[in-house]
Amino acid sequence: MRILAHHPGVEVVLATSREYVGKPVHCVHFNLRGVYRDLKFSELSVDAVLKNCDAVFLALPHGVSLNYVPKFYETGLLVVDLSADFRLKDPGAYKAWYGFEHPYPDLLRKAVYGLPEIHRGELRGAKLVALPGCNATAAIISLIPVVKAGLVDTERILVDVKAGSSEAGSRLSPADHHPERSGCIRPYEASGHRHAAEVEQELSIVAGKSVRVSMVPHAVGSVRGVLASSHVWLLEDIEELDVLRLYASTYRNEPFVRIVYKAPPGAPDPKYVVGSNYVDVGFALEKRVMRLTAFAAIDNLVKGAAGQAVQAFNIAVGFEETTGLKTIPLKPV
Amino acid sequence: MRILAHHPGVEVVLATSREYVGKPVHCVHFNLRGVYRDLKFSELSVDAVLKNCDAVFLALPHGVSLNYVPKFYETGLLVVDLSADFRLKDPGAYKAWYGFEHPYPDLLRKAVYGLPEIHRGELRGAKLVALPGCNATAAIISLIPVVKAGLVDTERILVDVKAGSSEAGSRLSPADHHPERSGCIRPYEASGHRHAAEVEQELSIVAGKSVRVSMVPHAVGSVRGVLASSHVWLLEDIEELDVLRLYASTYRNEPFVRIVYKAPPGAPDPKYVVGSNYVDVGFALEKRVMRLTAFAAIDNLVKGAAGQAVQAFNIAVGFEETTGLKTIPLKPV
Amino acid sequence: MRILAHHPGVEVVLATSREYVGKPVHCVHFNLRGVYRDLKFSELSVDAVLKNCDAVFLALPHGVSLNYVPKFYETGLLVVDLSADFRLKDPGAYKAWYGFEHPYPDLLRKAVYGLPEIHRGELRGAKLVALPGCNATAAIISLIPVVKAGLVDTERILVDVKAGSSEAGSRLSPADHHPERSGCIRPYEASGHRHAAEVEQELSIVAGKSVRVSMVPHAVGSVRGVLASSHVWLLEDIEELDVLRLYASTYRNEPFVRIVYKAPPGAPDPKYVVGSNYVDVGFALEKRVMRLTAFAAIDNLVKGAAGQAVQAFNIAVGFEETTGLKTIPLKPV
Amino acid sequence: MRILAHHPGVEVVLATSREYVGKPVHCVHFNLRGVYRDLKFSELSVDAVLKNCDAVFLALPHGVSLNYVPKFYETGLLVVDLSADFRLKDPGAYKAWYGFEHPYPDLLRKAVYGLPEIHRGELRGAKLVALPGCNATAAIISLIPVVKAGLVDTERILVDVKAGSSEAGSRLSPADHHPERSGCIRPYEASGHRHAAEVEQELSIVAGKSVRVSMVPHAVGSVRGVLASSHVWLLEDIEELDVLRLYASTYRNEPFVRIVYKAPPGAPDPKYVVGSNYVDVGFALEKRVMRLTAFAAIDNLVKGAAGQAVQAFNIAVGFEETTGLKTIPLKPV
Repeated sequence: MRILAHHPGVEVVLATSREYVGKPVHCVHFNLRGVYRDLKFSELSVDAVLKNCDAVFLALPHGVSLNYVPKFYETGLLVVDLSADFRLKDPGAYKAWYGFEHPYPDLLRKAVYGLPEIHRGELRGAKLVALPGCNATAAIISLIPVVKAGLVDTERILVDVKAGSSEAGSRLSPADHHPERSGCIRPYEASGHRHAAEVEQELSIVAGKSVRVSMVPHAVGSVRGVLASSHVWLLEDIEELDVLRLYASTYRNEPFVRIVYKAPPGAPDPKYVVGSNYVDVGFALEKRVMRLTAFAAIDNLVKGAAGQAVQAFNIAVGFEETTGLKTIPLKPV
Repeated sequence: MRILAHHPGVEVVLATSREYVGKPVHCVHFNLRGVYRDLKFSELSVDAVLKNCDAVFLALPHGVSLNYVPKFYETGLLVVDLSADFRLKDPGAYKAWYGFEHPYPDLLRKAVYGLPEIHRGELRGAKLVALPGCNATAAIISLIPVVKAGLVDTERILVDVKAGSSEAGSRLSPADHHPERSGCIRPYEASGHRHAAEVEQELSIVAGKSVRVSMVPHAVGSVRGVLASSHVWLLEDIEELDVLRLYASTYRNEPFVRIVYKAPPGAPDPKYVVGSNYVDVGFALEKRVMRLTAFAAIDNLVKGAAGQAVQAFNIAVGFEETTGLKTIPLKPV
Repeated sequence: MRILAHHPGVEVVLATSREYVGKPVHCVHFNLRGVYRDLKFSELSVDAVLKNCDAVFLALPHGVSLNYVPKFYETGLLVVDLSADFRLKDPGAYKAWYGFEHPYPDLLRKAVYGLPEIHRGELRGAKLVALPGCNATAAIISLIPVVKAGLVDTERILVDVKAGSSEAGSRLSPADHHPERSGCIRPYEASGHRHAAEVEQELSIVAGKSVRVSMVPHAVGSVRGVLASSHVWLLEDIEELDVLRLYASTYRNEPFVRIVYKAPPGAPDPKYVVGSNYVDVGFALEKRVMRLTAFAAIDNLVKGAAGQAVQAFNIAVGFEETTGLKTIPLKPV
Repeated sequence: MRILAHHPGVEVVLATSREYVGKPVHCVHFNLRGVYRDLKFSELSVDAVLKNCDAVFLALPHGVSLNYVPKFYETGLLVVDLSADFRLKDPGAYKAWYGFEHPYPDLLRKAVYGLPEIHRGELRGAKLVALPGCNATAAIISLIPVVKAGLVDTERILVDVKAGSSEAGSRLSPADHHPERSGCIRPYEASGHRHAAEVEQELSIVAGKSVRVSMVPHAVGSVRGVLASSHVWLLEDIEELDVLRLYASTYRNEPFVRIVYKAPPGAPDPKYVVGSNYVDVGFALEKRVMRLTAFAAIDNLVKGAAGQAVQAFNIAVGFEETTGLKTIPLKPV
């Protein structure tokens, strides 16, 4: 809603909530005081949405979203779904990674995975966008150039993720209680992190063959930001400048990808994309051991969620892709 | 420069630096990558400024700025000076608070103290704006309503300030080395903090008589943000709702002042204005002891510096006051 | 339990909990792994305590503790109560500040307020110790010298407190959820903070007359530590060195009070007492406005709670006062 | 000096410094106020050390230490050297990793690498201890069990390190200026991190054959603490419980190694060893892709430096190994 407030092509007419029905939006998200003066949260009513909206953004929990998406989709509304419920193409993968039988396997085929860096063409005119997860976004974008070029061992891709506390959402938990979370460096879901499923799916498309990806996320003490450090093993010798050329040419026309190489800040750091839709990408090559690490830094709530949602929405509708998304990061922050 | 980048009435044509001459701006302020693509830092040349610019923002150290301001001012250029060199009207005050004899006492009279909440009228068409200090901005705005109403003992005003590390600037110092600064709660300049001079000057204008202000700043572990907790003693009994009415009526038409009362976040917290030009204002009344604390929270680098500079510039030039300043704060951040 | 683990005169034989009955202590407080290997939490049973213990530390919520204290007290057990339930001498004060009629007014008279810096003599042989609150501890210790000397206006004492998140305890709350609490500077209970009641009581003892104290606490983004900035108005002119002498002579023999004056760290900062029972005390004098600010920095969980409990216990039992409390703070931390 | 203050077998008689000659120790390290009352920093004089000391701890920069070590060593003094100057056995490795020809190749053979978990036997009676680096300590300890058991591909070991700001020392640098360092997640030395040299050396000893290790450190926003996430590829299928048994049996008798498995905190987190000499070790196994990640968390200034120095010293001299090192970590911190 922060991003849409200044979007010239959008009017926010409905905001729904289970918890805050009847409350002014700015009393819950008080950063929006002075911006949304009258809008109040209402209950989610499919009818009200259909009557008042041309597009809907769904930020529901995994497994809940799939109860609503079909209803909106079949009426021709543009649906941007931020949950995981329509990200995977293979219905069997839901059983394996999420533990349930997917009830709408046909809709999985119709959904477009909302990563413009891979699916920009399909996004144009799309009616159902399944938005990538934040860790997945960083992991995939870091690796597209080298995977596409066939440079790396696709059986042994290891993505070590570091993430701020906002990734865990606003639900209270002992692990995210300030005294426990502050200053932590704590691995979590270190075996079988679910985002690996979508990273494998997307990098397999990029590679033109099946790839395997293992992810190890870590909670750190910042609030916003994700850094993916994607460690891969090279199949053949390559020079650093050739890797740079690969990244530069892959992302030359991407409005939100910035290559970080040698010049400050030296390597991607999510601190310097906070609040923006940028993804900063870089790499380090250690030829001695034939190892390359690709880095991607995003704001998990912008390029990793709401910002990317608006970017995909802009493409789907036909707006200029960067509309509403030109916020420049703060420095320092 | 972040704020001016999207200002429709401004083109940044020159950026000067002693340290970074010849370097692209985005290599120093790398949050600006992708925004200022070609602009490089040049040496400060008065001639170049006069030839190319209609207005100049000076962010020079105290005591340095006054060497340049007269040169720009006499040519009719609009000068917005972020230093303390032209904030005080009384030349003697420079001797007392800053330890030097002010060489341009006549210019002190011509400078307008750049706080729109007090000097909006004088700012229109002004040619020399002396921008308030960050701690001073928060202190003054917190207290205007009760001082103007004559409610408080103006001999015993105590402003307890808490400030993030960006207030100290980019110069390295042991006190701001991360391991020492992180998590600190550290009083500094606890006797005779210089911002008290300008707060006394401005609140005396508001009160219509001489007031005395004592300030005690504390360094805390955040990066951006200042909270002024202005403790005052009431001269007469007053009800909480009457204080609220006073604040609401004083600031009703201020585009950047938001009153925080009971609704979340409950009290002003600079965390929720970071990146924006807002100043969140609130108060607490303890009738038992006839004490009132007025709070004001700002981003020290926006409403406390660059944002207020652009706001004052907008007024001086005749642009809509909020131009370029509509950034909505992030939550959480 | 961390402190008692290495206390040569203590064996921890029982640890009770409502929530964790049956769990090994080190599974809940996992910093204690390798220290308490076999001890498990049990339910609070008065009989079990009476049968197995010579002393009991109660860390129960306000209003709950008073149900247990009398039972332990009447059997002659030494009771160190960390709640507020026996801190105030005047039963009427419980009605005014805590909203309930105190059921044991006679016990209030028998309890010793567990601040050794004021009550060391009474603590010797005491059977019921009411441990001070953390904010109160810092406030009182900062002010004893000047209040005792009759230097300040005792009608207008204002204590501005800054506190880390551990002060709020381990109970989850939206305000202490990491994304919201991190980097905050947020006033809370800014009118009528309850600790003012005990500070008034104790400083009145020190002053030999009734004093009034107003407290304004602020939540900041650190985890441990409280800084009290106690702002007072001087009744007469005094030199800085005389204030220093006052502090030095008052605290000369206190094992845990360290005076901070000019030498690094320049002023008390709780960062540099974390983990220790020290209280660092300092002051700033601004003669121009006749204002003095006294500072005291403590670790709220040590000198503000468990450490002071052990210090009071040591005195009550007759152990050397510093036993178990010689931990040196870390730097940096 | 914090650790030695309470060590019953040690008296600190000399403390040297280039920068602080003549200053009381507690004015520089002000956490030591009240502990070292009279000791002042003196210039480093080899004669004074030889006359007054039985052992010396050297905390000098790499390349400086090697000028002093031989002088002390040849007189029979016990030398614990915290620099990298005597860690590597192969003189050629100094050329390759540190860029200089080592002038004392024979002393390299005599130095004992001060990691008790591998070299306890050799440390007994040792006269020259080369203390491991902090990142190396965490990396090696995390991997000993699986490397020794021959379970992993020793050509493709990747250690992803996350480290707090105290690792960079007290020297000021723009990268560690608080506003820039706070909340960062920033890769550094991502190709050819020097600690890899000693990790390869030590794990090769453990493996009984040459192993290759690549390290990628990341700066995060905490002050103390290092987490090594050591990613390895399994050569054969293995059950999680068998890996657990391997770790448990390897470290059963280690006084400072704690295995973290399932019980809270779930995985090693340096937050919960801060201030102590513990190293918390754990692992995650993802059989689907035959990947294992071994984690080790240390306080970089204790087990990663001064604490391990005292541990090695205790062993060398014949003191009980844990003397002076029983500090229990704080929780929360």
